[in-house]
Amino acid sequence: MTSPFSDLAGLRARLRDLPDADAAATQAAQARNAQLTKPAGALGRLEDLAIWYAGWRGTARPRLARPQVVVFAGNHGVVERGVSAFPAAVTAQMVGNFEAGGAAVNQLAQAFGATMTVHPIDLDRPTGDFVEGPAMSEADLVAAMGVGWAAVDPEADLLVAGEMGIGNTCSASAIAMALEGGIAQDWTGRGTGVDDPGLARKVEAVAQGVARLNGETDPLEVLRQLGGREIAAMAGAILAARHHRIPVILDGFICSTAALVLHRAAPGILDHAVAGHQSAESAHARLLEALGKAPLLSLGLRLGEGSGGALAIGVLKGALACHSGMASFAEAGVSDG
Amino acid sequence: MTSPFSDLAGLRARLRDLPDADAAATQAAQARNAQLTKPAGALGRLEDLAIWYAGWRGTARPRLARPQVVVFAGNHGVVERGVSAFPAAVTAQMVGNFEAGGAAVNQLAQAFGATMTVHPIDLDRPTGDFVEGPAMSEADLVAAMGVGWAAVDPEADLLVAGEMGIGNTCSASAIAMALEGGIAQDWTGRGTGVDDPGLARKVEAVAQGVARLNGETDPLEVLRQLGGREIAAMAGAILAARHHRIPVILDGFICSTAALVLHRAAPGILDHAVAGHQSAESAHARLLEALGKAPLLSLGLRLGEGSGGALAIGVLKGALACHSGMASFAEAGVSDG
Repeated sequence: MTSPFSDLAGLRARLRDLPDADAAATQAAQARNAQLTKPAGALGRLEDLAIWYAGWRGTARPRLARPQVVVFAGNHGVVERGVSAFPAAVTAQMVGNFEAGGAAVNQLAQAFGATMTVHPIDLDRPTGDFVEGPAMSEADLVAAMGVGWAAVDPEADLLVAGEMGIGNTCSASAIAMALEGGIAQDWTGRGTGVDDPGLARKVEAVAQGVARLNGETDPLEVLRQLGGREIAAMAGAILAARHHRIPVILDGFICSTAALVLHRAAPGILDHAVAGHQSAESAHARLLEALGKAPLLSLGLRLGEGSGGALAIGVLKGALACHSGMASFAEAGVSDG
Repeated sequence: MTSPFSDLAGLRARLRDLPDADAAATQAAQARNAQLTKPAGALGRLEDLAIWYAGWRGTARPRLARPQVVVFAGNHGVVERGVSAFPAAVTAQMVGNFEAGGAAVNQLAQAFGATMTVHPIDLDRPTGDFVEGPAMSEADLVAAMGVGWAAVDPEADLLVAGEMGIGNTCSASAIAMALEGGIAQDWTGRGTGVDDPGLARKVEAVAQGVARLNGETDPLEVLRQLGGREIAAMAGAILAARHHRIPVILDGFICSTAALVLHRAAPGILDHAVAGHQSAESAHARLLEALGKAPLLSLGLRLGEGSGGALAIGVLKGALACHSGMASFAEAGVSDG
């Protein structure tokens, strides 16, 4: 599906024109949940998850049939400052690895029955160094968000959006700081494992990049200024999922900054999304608080690629299997308390 | 497979004669993990989990092919004291539901490709009320542990042991208190959702049952005194799994008390086990600390049946898919930092 917006005004209009969950399906799922052969509430968050999913899919007894993982890749001008443990060439190398099926997210998508597509975006044209000037032009931003929108299969029934981009935790930290305040140290972590001098350079880049914005807080403008294309594409994909009423499982720190841009642009826009996991990247917990989302998993992952989101498909799969497959007290002839 | 012990002495001997993980396979799995296309440590606990599993299965690149869920059911004399929200008849009714495929654990086992068997143990002969006297005779204890041992498929490559037994959180709380100390209030929760007067009766039963033991701390004797048969069977199954080098994912509070009995009887005996989840049952966190196990999931489940352990199969499945399926840096042509 091609992107429905060709400029920033069209994109902003789209943020105000999105469907909600189906209230009748939510109620029907709640009623079904109350009849299942278990003490009330005994499946904890699995119950909430199944009811939430039922509402977005518009059916009281949903099945997960067509989960989709999309991975976007971009390169970052800020990498020249020595803010990553890996060279920029690794972005393209890992795209090759995704295409060949060798990365972690390939295995996780396959393990949980999800399709997976990879979308490198202008890898030979890194975004501008955000310390010096805007990472992207308006046209670049709109195009990258359009790539994200177009990557979503309208027939999918679950979306996980992931990313690859050497240097992109640096952009993500800057976006989070620009939108949430605080100091650069609070938002900046080691990413793929940068050493102490590299971390110091990264903190400095984040601080300088945000300072350059002079207090700008318009979320889409912050995203344009700080990059990168793969973060914009994830935002576009999450937006498309909302348009199609496709539930989303968010991945880690970088995916969450893409979500944060949407959340600050249009509160409530992430009602169709849950947090798949809490990353080991130090600022992710704080970012999840800003989003008001409790993570489903907390297993110390800090890989990106959509890996934590894809792993959490297993939890949703379990929740839906219980909700849609269990017998009711009446069906099973079990006494209800 | 039939049980290899016919009396308590044989059972105690078995606790001292168990295999360890394969150190060479563990090392080979660690070496493989270090070569995979991800920053070192970026898959967090998934990496530890895959290496642990590889060691117990004796192969550097294991696959999960034959996971097994076993559910044991028993009835409890202490139920007559009004300690549960549900009547004792529900134990047998739920066994029917398991056999018909309608319970939560059926759906979870199926969702993650596990076989599932149900083992009701003398449901028409509840254990003795442990406030008044021993829950089981020595012969009962040995027989119940033997049922657990025999339920384990020697060809399985993963075990989840679960339970059903109205009143069994009361037994489990008493076992935990007898072995770990503290007061009855600390170890006693609402189980399936008992009301305040029921909870007060439950606390009183736990306190009186433990007081009756006069400081007895021999783990198998504590288990015999406080019951129940399904808890003993889970202990037997976890023991059999160790004998066959089958890794175990522990379920919630009640399963963890079965594990605690083994742990206090023979330290290190649970090296082949991980904690699948932290239950919402209030004392489970403390019990996991006593076992020295950090849970894989914490989603507010408090159902038992093996449901939390079965849900955690998804996490292990993801860990093994990554470990055994990912490309190495050399294979993928990706620069290694």
